[in-house]
Amino acid sequence: MKNIVSFVGHSDSGKTRLIERLVSTLRKKGHRVGVLKHTHARIKVDRKGTDTDRFRRAGAAVSAIADDRMLARFESPDEPMALLSALAAEVDILLVEGYKKLPLPKVLISDIMPKAGLKGVVATYGKRRPFARGRSPRHFGAGQTGELAGWLARTFSVTGKGPRVRLAVDGRSLGMKGFVAETMAGVVAGLVRPLKGGRGRKVAVSIDFGRKI
Amino acid sequence: MKNIVSFVGHSDSGKTRLIERLVSTLRKKGHRVGVLKHTHARIKVDRKGTDTDRFRRAGAAVSAIADDRMLARFESPDEPMALLSALAAEVDILLVEGYKKLPLPKVLISDIMPKAGLKGVVATYGKRRPFARGRSPRHFGAGQTGELAGWLARTFSVTGKGPRVRLAVDGRSLGMKGFVAETMAGVVAGLVRPLKGGRGRKVAVSIDFGRKI
Repeated sequence: MKNIVSFVGHSDSGKTRLIERLVSTLRKKGHRVGVLKHTHARIKVDRKGTDTDRFRRAGAAVSAIADDRMLARFESPDEPMALLSALAAEVDILLVEGYKKLPLPKVLISDIMPKAGLKGVVATYGKRRPFARGRSPRHFGAGQTGELAGWLARTFSVTGKGPRVRLAVDGRSLGMKGFVAETMAGVVAGLVRPLKGGRGRKVAVSIDFGRKI
Repeated sequence: MKNIVSFVGHSDSGKTRLIERLVSTLRKKGHRVGVLKHTHARIKVDRKGTDTDRFRRAGAAVSAIADDRMLARFESPDEPMALLSALAAEVDILLVEGYKKLPLPKVLISDIMPKAGLKGVVATYGKRRPFARGRSPRHFGAGQTGELAGWLARTFSVTGKGPRVRLAVDGRSLGMKGFVAETMAGVVAGLVRPLKGGRGRKVAVSIDFGRKI
């Protein structure tokens, strides 16, 4: 969950365009980037009557369609923090647009600090610095997307760091740190390494115990 | 990978409609169902110029959008078997349309057996039995969707069975059976059970070691 950063700002502040540029720059630097946009408006990506829509309406938990270059999956979202951490586990850095009320570190795209106190602003981006200098978060001027991308990479991306241990029980993320995390990493490495094809960087184990443990 | 079954037949044989009915019946029986459709035609679910499309074009590995009732994710597909096993791990039973050439158990929807030998047909569905009786796979007559759903549930769904251990290294599924699987399940249960919120049925651990183990 340390590799998530969100972008907030007015609806016409250029959040989507900024994220688009950051994705491109971060990707060129070798980071695996994920983006999640949250909207209160109803999303309209899957039209009524498509096959995936029909499977969803019939009750499929996950309805997906693939061709040789794209996979599109449709499902009911988990509660927001579980959804975010599941996506974050698949990438080096997850850029989020929306979810303004969640306790995520935020980059504010605005020349004006919003009146309603926004918690967790770690950086600002825009022509003018909205916070008074001194007690200000880090500021990036309009156009300094390269600098912002570099700072995001250093601050949030997990590329080349590790081991990181993530755990979810029945879809809910649980914290795992220190001794327990080290033991888990050590035991899993020990069991997986000797297997054919077991030598890799990212290991995912999922166990269905069939009943509550 | 034991909980995947695919559906093959002519393009107008009613595969999608049959799957839709099976999803509905299986769901009512308490199974968590996933559906994956593969097509050689280009899928058109994400239109040019949507935000998710812009993030994908900029190089995002995963581009997703959520409102409060739906999550839509767009990404490059893994190679087919990895994609199938990742989806299968999230559900009790995965119904697949397409991927005719993969070594999956198949339900043939047709009154005519195709001339080109189709491997792995475990059941047929239609007005007439396409195989000669005797050396025939199981046959379900047109309209016997309830019977077919029941048989699929007993044969493929993992609901209530377990423990099942799945393992992926760098996105590739590896088999894990017998002693190694039991040891993994035992160790993970032992480490997770004492944690706050650790008592559940499905446990997912993902570890990024930061380098090859």
